[in-house]
Amino acid sequence: MEQGLVFISDTRTNAGVDHISVFRKLHTFGVTGERFIALQTAGNLATTQAVIGHLQNALTLQQEPNLYSVNTMFEAAELIGKTLKTVLEDISSDTQEQMNYACSILVGGQIKGGDMQLYNVYPQGNFICATTDTPYFQIGESKYGKPILDRALYYAMPLDDALRCSLISFDSTLRSNVSVGLPLDALVYIKDSFVIPMGKRITEDDPYFSQISKQWSDTLRRGLQEMPKPTDDYWR
Amino acid sequence: MEQGLVFISDTRTNAGVDHISVFRKLHTFGVTGERFIALQTAGNLATTQAVIGHLQNALTLQQEPNLYSVNTMFEAAELIGKTLKTVLEDISSDTQEQMNYACSILVGGQIKGGDMQLYNVYPQGNFICATTDTPYFQIGESKYGKPILDRALYYAMPLDDALRCSLISFDSTLRSNVSVGLPLDALVYIKDSFVIPMGKRITEDDPYFSQISKQWSDTLRRGLQEMPKPTDDYWR
Repeated sequence: MEQGLVFISDTRTNAGVDHISVFRKLHTFGVTGERFIALQTAGNLATTQAVIGHLQNALTLQQEPNLYSVNTMFEAAELIGKTLKTVLEDISSDTQEQMNYACSILVGGQIKGGDMQLYNVYPQGNFICATTDTPYFQIGESKYGKPILDRALYYAMPLDDALRCSLISFDSTLRSNVSVGLPLDALVYIKDSFVIPMGKRITEDDPYFSQISKQWSDTLRRGLQEMPKPTDDYWR
Repeated sequence: MEQGLVFISDTRTNAGVDHISVFRKLHTFGVTGERFIALQTAGNLATTQAVIGHLQNALTLQQEPNLYSVNTMFEAAELIGKTLKTVLEDISSDTQEQMNYACSILVGGQIKGGDMQLYNVYPQGNFICATTDTPYFQIGESKYGKPILDRALYYAMPLDDALRCSLISFDSTLRSNVSVGLPLDALVYIKDSFVIPMGKRITEDDPYFSQISKQWSDTLRRGLQEMPKPTDDYWR
């Protein structure tokens, strides 16, 4: 977070266990040298695709405001929040009913003249911003991967450590929940670079990801073995 | 599981974040030399207390069937499932409405002449049994603690390893979710012993639990550092 932003998304969508597909959930916008904006989505696929579609459409037709005309990351988050809210209102005027089609969106990036920011945008169109105290967000299936982030991640963490930490967090989720699946999309933005990264797609035969997944299992098993033996009072 | 059973419960109940209390969720029944039955509960506290109350009441009044008269662990699970179903039916005849008061119960133990068993009893009164393939169950807030169990736990694992693994799993949940809180109740049953263990209450100043919690954080941080550096293609 201090040095940049790490984004990792899976690509599995499901409408029940026999209706599983691969869709990209990590999208980038930007102008090299001037702005970089990444969106990660979780939730209803039609809704997330509609939001991305409207944002891209506004760029194509040069409708204002759009992601290349907003002045700050705050305005970008506002635009995305309003777009999401409008998409849901188009489905139903009933806010309860809207929740059946809801999604969450992480928005991260940097616009020249401003700081790098990371926002978590809610279906209601409002949002929160990551800080030095809480330098990461998760959306979607977040629980399995949270313990390693809670223990290891911190604001000033070097970017390559943060990337490894995020990959391991995702690997834990992949192992414990079949609704999350490979391939993954990973992307690292280096602060003040204003470069639009291509990112990397991590497939099942990716040698680096396979290696850290295996090595992490070994770390955990060996770590368990190195724990002191339980005291006698556990055996009463 | 091959050598015995490890039970760990927290003691936090909540009805909203400003209504938190300490209640025991791990209960034992048994006759030394003849039978040991442990129950772990998760869900609505009034329901779980009613189930335990009915089971104890049947023993006090020597009503049949009761936990000291059932012949097998299968019959014990049946009795507990029926008791739970009856408690919920007393609240409402509407099965949807019943779910607002539902709970889950793990039942583990051994009765002389039979194998040690572990059951997961559902609010509908039906249940599933742990096997060599899946030698553990979690109820309640299960996701944060699941990755370490999925990676490390196996049927033939020595009991003290299984105990350490379970404690670390619980520690991860404690750190990531405030609805789960100390003290913990831990209990180990050694197969074919027919001893009713007293168990151990783990409080905040427990030196062994504090030590493994700290050492586990160190293991994870060091393990992260030892991971190979991300390959160049992550930085494109």
